[in-house]
Amino acid sequence: MPFAPPPIVPTRDDTLSLRLQQRIDRKTKPRGSLGRLESLAHQIGMIRRTLAPRLSSPTVFVFAADHGVADEGVSAYPQDVTWQMVENFLAGGAAINVLARQQGVALRIVDAGVRHDFGRRDGLIDRKIRAGSGNLAVEPAMTARECEQALQAGADLMAGTDSDVVGFGEMGIANTTPAAALMHRLTGIPIVDCVGAGTGVDAAGVARKTRVIERAVRRHAGAQTPLDVLAALGGLEIAMMTGAMLGAASRRRVLLIDGFIATSALLVAARLNPAILDYCVFCHQSGERGHARMLQALCAQPLLDLGLRLGEGTGCVLAWPLVQAAAALLCDMASFEDAGVSDRPDGLGGADQPQSGRFQDAGIGDEQGGA
Amino acid sequence: MPFAPPPIVPTRDDTLSLRLQQRIDRKTKPRGSLGRLESLAHQIGMIRRTLAPRLSSPTVFVFAADHGVADEGVSAYPQDVTWQMVENFLAGGAAINVLARQQGVALRIVDAGVRHDFGRRDGLIDRKIRAGSGNLAVEPAMTARECEQALQAGADLMAGTDSDVVGFGEMGIANTTPAAALMHRLTGIPIVDCVGAGTGVDAAGVARKTRVIERAVRRHAGAQTPLDVLAALGGLEIAMMTGAMLGAASRRRVLLIDGFIATSALLVAARLNPAILDYCVFCHQSGERGHARMLQALCAQPLLDLGLRLGEGTGCVLAWPLVQAAAALLCDMASFEDAGVSDRPDGLGGADQPQSGRFQDAGIGDEQGGA
Repeated sequence: MPFAPPPIVPTRDDTLSLRLQQRIDRKTKPRGSLGRLESLAHQIGMIRRTLAPRLSSPTVFVFAADHGVADEGVSAYPQDVTWQMVENFLAGGAAINVLARQQGVALRIVDAGVRHDFGRRDGLIDRKIRAGSGNLAVEPAMTARECEQALQAGADLMAGTDSDVVGFGEMGIANTTPAAALMHRLTGIPIVDCVGAGTGVDAAGVARKTRVIERAVRRHAGAQTPLDVLAALGGLEIAMMTGAMLGAASRRRVLLIDGFIATSALLVAARLNPAILDYCVFCHQSGERGHARMLQALCAQPLLDLGLRLGEGTGCVLAWPLVQAAAALLCDMASFEDAGVSDRPDGLGGADQPQSGRFQDAGIGDEQGGA
Repeated sequence: MPFAPPPIVPTRDDTLSLRLQQRIDRKTKPRGSLGRLESLAHQIGMIRRTLAPRLSSPTVFVFAADHGVADEGVSAYPQDVTWQMVENFLAGGAAINVLARQQGVALRIVDAGVRHDFGRRDGLIDRKIRAGSGNLAVEPAMTARECEQALQAGADLMAGTDSDVVGFGEMGIANTTPAAALMHRLTGIPIVDCVGAGTGVDAAGVARKTRVIERAVRRHAGAQTPLDVLAALGGLEIAMMTGAMLGAASRRRVLLIDGFIATSALLVAARLNPAILDYCVFCHQSGERGHARMLQALCAQPLLDLGLRLGEGTGCVLAWPLVQAAAALLCDMASFEDAGVSDRPDGLGGADQPQSGRFQDAGIGDEQGGA
């Protein structure tokens, strides 16, 4: 059965948008003084359709898979590191484990296509489509059917997830190569601007990656639709992330988007349905060379810029406290009226009176009982 | 008794520095891939003198005071907002309350010189030096004695604080004016580049602030030492923050530096003893115009850049999860050897063996019993 992208509705709602902005502006602070947290609070309110969004703790999914293109020598690390790092995730020793424990974030490790037999393992979600993708320089990374299976498996995973905030991370030696190839094909940005050092290859390695992607793009020039491009040039974990992102947005979850690889999966999803972007929080700008332009292509403003280039969903967990903060400020901070604080005399401090009645008419939920 | 700045020793220790870097490089990740968190982890290890820093939750002090210069019309808000916001802090409704509760950060509200009689109040630390500073455009903000009292009170507060992480926030209508004046006098940066919109004054307001600071700087041209400049152009909460920062660094605490006002207090402290900078984490770059150049003058790299311009210590609490993350990664993340993960074949992945013996010789604490 071909993959049918789940429906996603834009968050647009002018009445709610206005009421959210009024609520933010009447908090006890100069208007706009919480900067990006204010637009983030507004976005969360729009996603969750409420003036007082109480977010549950997020779940971060880490999708792991191997890549045939590793045979071209595009990574600084041997391919076995993919399954070894999955073991590290299961043992709790990787960066994402440490960060998730610290922030109370639930972690789910998904085998989307690792070239290794883990057997049945507690804590590992087995959605292996095949044991590593094809080498995109010489063959399609996936068949159309495998790609659709991966997308569907990702979407189905979201159906079984209660968290109203979901993060997307990945592990896959060589996966900056398919991500850069997807970026080039879906945005038209020159290959040289899409390719970076990944896990740390030198200048010769970057040149080699560039040539590999040039070959792959020529070979798969016939791929036209986003799903054709994904199957030809992507990867199993990337396709499964794309499906999971679509599924999460169709359920009005807040999507935490990590770095270069995760954003490449979102690029595909946004080509299928641009409304998904309403649901995305761009957690950070990666140190990987192409990420800044990839974010620009999506008109995305990242929250953090810390030079991270690890993947695993680490950026999602590091940005989560900011998301949580934005929601909490919207819910719990006092207004000028509540606190008896004087507004600025020119009335530009934010204490404009709401237009009475419209809120109730619109039927928007306000858990705190007063806008 | 004149204020004697508490002694602060630089964190420099070549052996510990090397061992920290080795420990960071041997974690299961490509070298450098955790970006700024790696340098932050290194700094925290140097401050706490350990390879495995376990940080307690921070305490954020919010120092409040009024400013005579408010009479010059330099703020968009009436001066009463200072005490009203202190009441908001005590009632738990301000942004800093919401954020501190969410992150488990302890909050201490200090009256350094608010022009209001709070009486005895639970939760308010009364260190009022006087009810508002003088109008620096026409008189010194403080006498030398008042300034020294404020510095000493700040330093003394740190003696009674157990947290090994301390944040510094403030509230004081009009206080971007003294902060900009201090910035100009202590860095030589032109006044026009030090002045911004504060709580939200318009272009005419910015021009008025600029002229007020020009007058003040001419009037107090005779002030030469950092403490003279602080007394003439500063404010009571700024002086008390300066003293508290010096006291915290002398106790080897990790200092969380907030925005424009807090950084101006640090400018004074750094002129008294530049070693304090070893202990400072610069939490964010404020949206207030002068802050970027103020940070540059301190060679400071801020963690966040979210357009915040609220003060109260909000940037400290928002950056705290990153500080906590850096320490946790250093303590808890597995090494390549621990996890059985293959290093890159060229040996540049970070798994160099430590130089045996030097660690024990240096007597550096390692709570985990193995570097």
